[in-house]
Amino acid sequence: MTHNLHAYLFDEVDKAFERQVDFLVELTSHASVRGQEQSAQNLMADQLATRGYDIDRWQISLADIQHLPGFSPVLAPYKDALNVVGTHRSTTQQGRSLILNGHIDVVPAGPLDMWDSPPFEPHIAGGWLYGRGGGDMKAGLVSNLFALDALRACGYAPAADVFYQSVVEEECTGNGALACLARGYTADAALIPEPFSEHLVTAQLGVIWFQVHLKGLPTHVAYAGSGSNAIEAAFPLIEALHNMEHRWNVVQNRPDDYAHMDHALNLNVGKFAGGDWTSSVPAWSVFDVRMAIFPGQSIDSAKAEIEQVILTTARDNAFLRNSLPEIVYHGFHAEGYALSQDSSVNAAAAIASLESAHQTATGEPLVREAITATTDARFFGLYADIPALVYGPRAEAIHGFNERVELESMRKITKTTALFIADWCGVEKV
Amino acid sequence: MTHNLHAYLFDEVDKAFERQVDFLVELTSHASVRGQEQSAQNLMADQLATRGYDIDRWQISLADIQHLPGFSPVLAPYKDALNVVGTHRSTTQQGRSLILNGHIDVVPAGPLDMWDSPPFEPHIAGGWLYGRGGGDMKAGLVSNLFALDALRACGYAPAADVFYQSVVEEECTGNGALACLARGYTADAALIPEPFSEHLVTAQLGVIWFQVHLKGLPTHVAYAGSGSNAIEAAFPLIEALHNMEHRWNVVQNRPDDYAHMDHALNLNVGKFAGGDWTSSVPAWSVFDVRMAIFPGQSIDSAKAEIEQVILTTARDNAFLRNSLPEIVYHGFHAEGYALSQDSSVNAAAAIASLESAHQTATGEPLVREAITATTDARFFGLYADIPALVYGPRAEAIHGFNERVELESMRKITKTTALFIADWCGVEKV
Repeated sequence: MTHNLHAYLFDEVDKAFERQVDFLVELTSHASVRGQEQSAQNLMADQLATRGYDIDRWQISLADIQHLPGFSPVLAPYKDALNVVGTHRSTTQQGRSLILNGHIDVVPAGPLDMWDSPPFEPHIAGGWLYGRGGGDMKAGLVSNLFALDALRACGYAPAADVFYQSVVEEECTGNGALACLARGYTADAALIPEPFSEHLVTAQLGVIWFQVHLKGLPTHVAYAGSGSNAIEAAFPLIEALHNMEHRWNVVQNRPDDYAHMDHALNLNVGKFAGGDWTSSVPAWSVFDVRMAIFPGQSIDSAKAEIEQVILTTARDNAFLRNSLPEIVYHGFHAEGYALSQDSSVNAAAAIASLESAHQTATGEPLVREAITATTDARFFGLYADIPALVYGPRAEAIHGFNERVELESMRKITKTTALFIADWCGVEKV
Repeated sequence: MTHNLHAYLFDEVDKAFERQVDFLVELTSHASVRGQEQSAQNLMADQLATRGYDIDRWQISLADIQHLPGFSPVLAPYKDALNVVGTHRSTTQQGRSLILNGHIDVVPAGPLDMWDSPPFEPHIAGGWLYGRGGGDMKAGLVSNLFALDALRACGYAPAADVFYQSVVEEECTGNGALACLARGYTADAALIPEPFSEHLVTAQLGVIWFQVHLKGLPTHVAYAGSGSNAIEAAFPLIEALHNMEHRWNVVQNRPDDYAHMDHALNLNVGKFAGGDWTSSVPAWSVFDVRMAIFPGQSIDSAKAEIEQVILTTARDNAFLRNSLPEIVYHGFHAEGYALSQDSSVNAAAAIASLESAHQTATGEPLVREAITATTDARFFGLYADIPALVYGPRAEAIHGFNERVELESMRKITKTTALFIADWCGVEKV
């Protein structure tokens, strides 16, 4: 790398930044919730093809991934789940290869009347872009793309293969990232610009999703007896699950990365539905739960305890005893992952390279953080020995209303990323 | 009435009974849930027209009824709410007029996999007809129709006007029956063959429906704090409502008709919905409640207490305090009604006439019963000084799965009804 390449790179990021923001607005306007990612993926593929990358666009096949570690069960077939990868092939192959990963799927917007402006009509105010998915994580996808552009604008390309990945299903299974691995994409490091305030993520939790189905034999409410209501029968089960949540969070269960957090593992009842008619005692209910686990905690034993808690509580309940809850898994079977525990030379080198790039781009030291969510980093780190750096812009209200991402933060991340690519991969003349 | 008319009437009921059952099967096969009553109403109108009754079929208009006592609020317009009345005009006008009332609407079937056979493909087994609405209350509608037929088959017609009513909305508002009153239909007595085991209903409860809407400002579950979940925020509200339910049921609050019942007033959480995504802290939930009140209990003061209970509990809750629940009323604003409290000459005469007919038809004395549900009887009794006799066949699992009605019980009710019409209205030659 030339002595002052960084200044040229930053200059190119600045010069293209208005276009970068425009593209973020366009990408965020695609409502790419699960099952509806196609138009956003088409846009990504077009952008990558225009820039001359080799395009690989494929439909995820369960047969390709369901036997692999890290697979999460799904209910529906994957007919509409399309991954996109754009590949830069280095001519010199002198550097270290890199995966630039991001997810195109966004979580549902929720009730529209709780947004100050429509979630899929993104707008900019006070230096922030507002819109569902703008932060989580389209700003990161855009940053990856424009970081590569900046290098190109300086007359360089990475001196190693770079795989630009736009994947589906990060928000419910991670099977999109898994499908990239199954298709053979590996590299010496991966960067995932998830929106964690320009911090480097040193550890992330695992996540399990499960659904609890309750059924019973009710009748006209005139004959309602206590305890025969399939909606209210769920309440003691949820209380028992919260008790389990508190047990899992006690000090002695916490790995080092989470020793300082009183309540890293959150149990969330994210959806609840039951009953058909106000004057009929409800015969059924279903609730959806997300529960976190620590890195190193076994998914199988976590599931066993979840099932035991639910069934033991149900056996104490007059209504549920005769019709035990059914537990259905669809969605996350995600293990935790700690980059901090990766003692490889590659990991140390990648972290050092990012640290230096961040310092140069922002003038600040790189802050490290253990997060209480999951990301696709686990696939690279746990199942392919690829150190995965999660480092992205500042965003707020991800999964909430008026989600927003700070544009100057995206600019900084783009600069850091451009510099990191140049340093990690090395450069060659275009 | 000729001395042994009852024997001829019973004989005609028996002779037509196979056709009556066939018609019940046909009528029950129409899935006349709220909003989809049209085909069943068309069938009723055709049957009445074929028999020569004057047909009045009209769309309920909110403007005609919303100012009247007994009106219940609704959310949707009434574009598909059609009432049907078939009128017999007596040529002699020597007897007492009669309303034969029944509702065509049925409650939703609920999950189909909980039925042993499809709810709208009625079938007969072991002397029972199975199907949603067969008991509640299509057997009653059919009984009213074939009771009139039996009289006709004997060569007689009622010697007073008889209004055969097939109304909508009994199961959620009663506005169908109210619209009949508003249209000018009155009489000296009303008979409603709701399925209460051949008992005469002496009192019925009032019912209030309300919906509680909760909203909040959640975010990614990684940042979930305790108490910020719009689904779980509902649980303490429901608990507080059950405490209110227990207070309302205490001995000193019970009118005579319910003095012997420990828990006549049931609060039912009949529907619950909330959240959009398993890994998002839910921002909203809505639950639907049915609460009963005693005859004589004021709807306005009941609503005031419901609201006070909800808002007081919400103010104690960290999440709800900042975004108080919204309480929406749509559905029942139904007062209780006690035939037992009607000291009019008409009421006594109507009860005596039914009692005698029942004894003759069944060989048993008429049992009287206070019920824990509501019926459309309140409109006639409370707002039009028409004693309303609720008396219908034996049915089981109304509002539940595998709802069924006993066919021999329908036969008995039809015989009683034919005899009651002949006695109450008197007869004239056709």
